[in-house]
Amino acid sequence: MAPDPRRATGVLFDLDGTLIDSVYQHVLAWREALEAEEIDLPVWTIHRKIGMSGGLFARALLRETGSALTAETVERLQRAHAEAYTAYAASVRPLPGAVDLLRKLTELGVPWGIATSGRRQTAAPNLALLDVPETVVVITRDLVQRAKPDPDLFLAAADALGLAIEDCVVVGDSVWDLLAARRARALGVGLLAGGYGREELERAGAFRVYEDPADLLRHLDELGIRDAE
Amino acid sequence: MAPDPRRATGVLFDLDGTLIDSVYQHVLAWREALEAEEIDLPVWTIHRKIGMSGGLFARALLRETGSALTAETVERLQRAHAEAYTAYAASVRPLPGAVDLLRKLTELGVPWGIATSGRRQTAAPNLALLDVPETVVVITRDLVQRAKPDPDLFLAAADALGLAIEDCVVVGDSVWDLLAARRARALGVGLLAGGYGREELERAGAFRVYEDPADLLRHLDELGIRDAE
Repeated sequence: MAPDPRRATGVLFDLDGTLIDSVYQHVLAWREALEAEEIDLPVWTIHRKIGMSGGLFARALLRETGSALTAETVERLQRAHAEAYTAYAASVRPLPGAVDLLRKLTELGVPWGIATSGRRQTAAPNLALLDVPETVVVITRDLVQRAKPDPDLFLAAADALGLAIEDCVVVGDSVWDLLAARRARALGVGLLAGGYGREELERAGAFRVYEDPADLLRHLDELGIRDAE
Repeated sequence: MAPDPRRATGVLFDLDGTLIDSVYQHVLAWREALEAEEIDLPVWTIHRKIGMSGGLFARALLRETGSALTAETVERLQRAHAEAYTAYAASVRPLPGAVDLLRKLTELGVPWGIATSGRRQTAAPNLALLDVPETVVVITRDLVQRAKPDPDLFLAAADALGLAIEDCVVVGDSVWDLLAARRARALGVGLLAGGYGREELERAGAFRVYEDPADLLRHLDELGIRDAE
């Protein structure tokens, strides 16, 4: 069946660095966790791995450090990261326009959801900052087999909204979001708010790149989302 | 007088993000300092301002927050940043290859120096990490009228080495280093180690972009620096 051009566009959001200003805090929390395991990784290389699945992160570490991580080490790392992040969490805020953007989409009747490589437990306090109702579609790492850049998270979010993934716009701050969007066959939109450069996001497949949710909100028309139908 | 093609090439290094893995710590230290003044700036926008002169940083803040900073506020901000950074300093390390690269240049008789928008006091512990002799040319903010992207710091470093700036390669991780290099008429080389994307650095004028000092060390030939003459 050919896609119906009148069908609603849905919007699937990444969480950290896209709606919440938390990437740099996650980066330094990972730095602390890795240091405790005597894994000395330059901070920018950690930054470029935020948002990818934990399994792939561990593989990338293997390449860069030359030693494989045991399951116990991975678990210790994840615990240490979660603990270190908690210490930073007080400085974490929604990104400019995030709350307004979500509210506007709801007002317009545009279906939207959140898909994050993080676990439900880590995501919960961030969701609270966004003031979103309990009923919002939120797909976390715990609910799918593979995290980003595999497409599972976004596919599950589209399913939960009752939309075909081809009718969805994926909004993310990292190349992992955009690779997942491509693999899922969704339209990818990048935000600079996670600290990637514009061209990095475009090369990874972003159709458009905006600064932050406020900038995206000002340009909803560019995504074909009409203010009043 | 036409430049003598046989003259030695000198190398002028930025410090934070170029030789020392300290950018993300500076970013979050600024975030804390700004927050204490109730200036709520997304973290990625702070990241993109690291390494520019304090005066320009204050002007950029004025644009983004809409209110001018008094001299007292600027001084409080700087003190709060220095204090917050101290708390992060324990996790700061030289970047991969930084110590080896400087040692190699010294061995080869290539003149080199350091030029940083930071003050002497902030730079001192980072210089200690690099294990450089007291006699090395280090130009800090205190020694020139204008910091980056004005060319003063790099011009002063070339002067101190007794080199024409046209015979110098400027190595930096931020667009501020590369703009200063262009304005000084030096050849600019970018490093990804400060968290900028490759294309951002190229657009700002980087002739080459390497990952970190170790990667630059492996490619010295690309800058015309010969291993043995």
